[in-house]
Amino acid sequence: MEIRERFYQYISELQDTITAALESYEDDKKFLEDRWNREEGGGGRSRVLENGKVFEKAGVNISAVHGPLPESLQNYFQVDKSNFYACGISLVIHPRSPMVPTVHANFRYFEMHDLEGNLKKQWFGGGLDLTPYYLFDEDAKHFHQVCKSACDPHGKDLYQPYKKRCDEYFWNAHRDEARGVGGLFFDHLQDDEERSMEGWYKFVTDVGDHFLEAYLPIVDKRKDTSYDQNQKDWQKLRRGRYVEFNLVHDKGTLFGLKTKGRIESILMSLPPEVNWKYNYHPPEGSEEARLIEVLKIPKNWIDEADH
Amino acid sequence: MEIRERFYQYISELQDTITAALESYEDDKKFLEDRWNREEGGGGRSRVLENGKVFEKAGVNISAVHGPLPESLQNYFQVDKSNFYACGISLVIHPRSPMVPTVHANFRYFEMHDLEGNLKKQWFGGGLDLTPYYLFDEDAKHFHQVCKSACDPHGKDLYQPYKKRCDEYFWNAHRDEARGVGGLFFDHLQDDEERSMEGWYKFVTDVGDHFLEAYLPIVDKRKDTSYDQNQKDWQKLRRGRYVEFNLVHDKGTLFGLKTKGRIESILMSLPPEVNWKYNYHPPEGSEEARLIEVLKIPKNWIDEADH
Repeated sequence: MEIRERFYQYISELQDTITAALESYEDDKKFLEDRWNREEGGGGRSRVLENGKVFEKAGVNISAVHGPLPESLQNYFQVDKSNFYACGISLVIHPRSPMVPTVHANFRYFEMHDLEGNLKKQWFGGGLDLTPYYLFDEDAKHFHQVCKSACDPHGKDLYQPYKKRCDEYFWNAHRDEARGVGGLFFDHLQDDEERSMEGWYKFVTDVGDHFLEAYLPIVDKRKDTSYDQNQKDWQKLRRGRYVEFNLVHDKGTLFGLKTKGRIESILMSLPPEVNWKYNYHPPEGSEEARLIEVLKIPKNWIDEADH
Repeated sequence: MEIRERFYQYISELQDTITAALESYEDDKKFLEDRWNREEGGGGRSRVLENGKVFEKAGVNISAVHGPLPESLQNYFQVDKSNFYACGISLVIHPRSPMVPTVHANFRYFEMHDLEGNLKKQWFGGGLDLTPYYLFDEDAKHFHQVCKSACDPHGKDLYQPYKKRCDEYFWNAHRDEARGVGGLFFDHLQDDEERSMEGWYKFVTDVGDHFLEAYLPIVDKRKDTSYDQNQKDWQKLRRGRYVEFNLVHDKGTLFGLKTKGRIESILMSLPPEVNWKYNYHPPEGSEEARLIEVLKIPKNWIDEADH
């Protein structure tokens, strides 16, 4: 089987695994599935769970789209008229409790063909990142430790640069702060001297296989922690920053809008209840203020000794 | 006095007039004022009223900023290295009741100078537009009628094109619908065969003077209409579209972010409480569905007979 077919099968199974695992936290709420077609070619399978006990909104989508590369993206990729194929899984989980962090992950494969049908480029991209509302250092460490464990068997040189790119990518520039405590971000993984596409396939799917291990232990640990209305309000405010990042800076969202993706699936990433309050600054010395301090200067979550 | 000084004085007085008028609807809530300076030159005076009885969040800002034109905007304006001066008033009012529409208005003046200090360009821009959550046709008609009354003394050729540009500008392209029922939008009003800058000054300030007349009668008529939680939820969902427009499409927001404006003043336009719900469609035949139908195909709110 060609790599793109194997990868599509992989993300399709990963969607099943992840949605089943998340459903196991809910009494009765299930993911609802929508299948959709894209006029210009391809389609997707969106799954959303809303208003759960643990998960206030969780979206886990897969899609495979293809067709002529939109003109605006020709410039972006600096290519002539081309056809493209892209498939991937994309998920965002917004828990109800402000003690449980939001998580995002995305694993995708991309191909570009010239008009004669010759494959000109192919690459993988993706990553996962964590956005806490209250910061438990041990949770951030756990998440990064699993990220590193997923990377290391494929090369000791992978975790650090992809951790750094994650901090750079999820940077809410207009706020001068990170969206969250990061994780991994990689893009344009293509045949090079060190790894074939087959090697990258193994890497990306291995990272995908580590997603639940990175996130669920944090859910388990925090989901029953009590919280008050002020803490819930703080979560809603911080969710506003999440919206700002996704609508102002996120290239994935832009790509979706430009390729006329299914709008409800693209914007499924937006949190359910969000507040904006003018010029709010948490009191000095508070837990809320400490979160922002950490987001201002992304830190290494893994001790040097562990390297 | 030079036009820019007179205009700054005008917007400064308009801010006073508008904030005083809005405060008169509240028992005890007042606008809080923040004065801020911009590192690269200039500053502003932001006024925000939050959590009022009638107005859930209202922001009325003035600013006057100047300095070197940021590189990204050199390309946008297609000019060489330049200095700029920009001043304006910008307001967004989010009422508590879903029966009262959100309103936005903006009146601004812009100058560009070459590095020797010669004035190379100057123009006015601005407008006002209405975003209802429940559509009362007579309110939209009233708003447009006042817009037309403000335009007509300055030329019978002004209302229609500026009404049309408003519909085009406040178009939420990714949703294929207008943000609201429009109003007026104009930009790059500069010396031409028909009007001098002095003529445009009179036009823009005349439109500014009509703002309260366009909006307050609608507030008066709708503020005591009862509503239920479902209607409030619908307002919060529609406010999500407002956020999407402002963060994805609005050039004013973009200009603010690129010129390192004061972020809290720029994003003051965002509504206080916002919801996103996956793929929600109001029931056929409902008032909510009718609103969307109207937003899909911007209509003329003034009868031909009135022209």
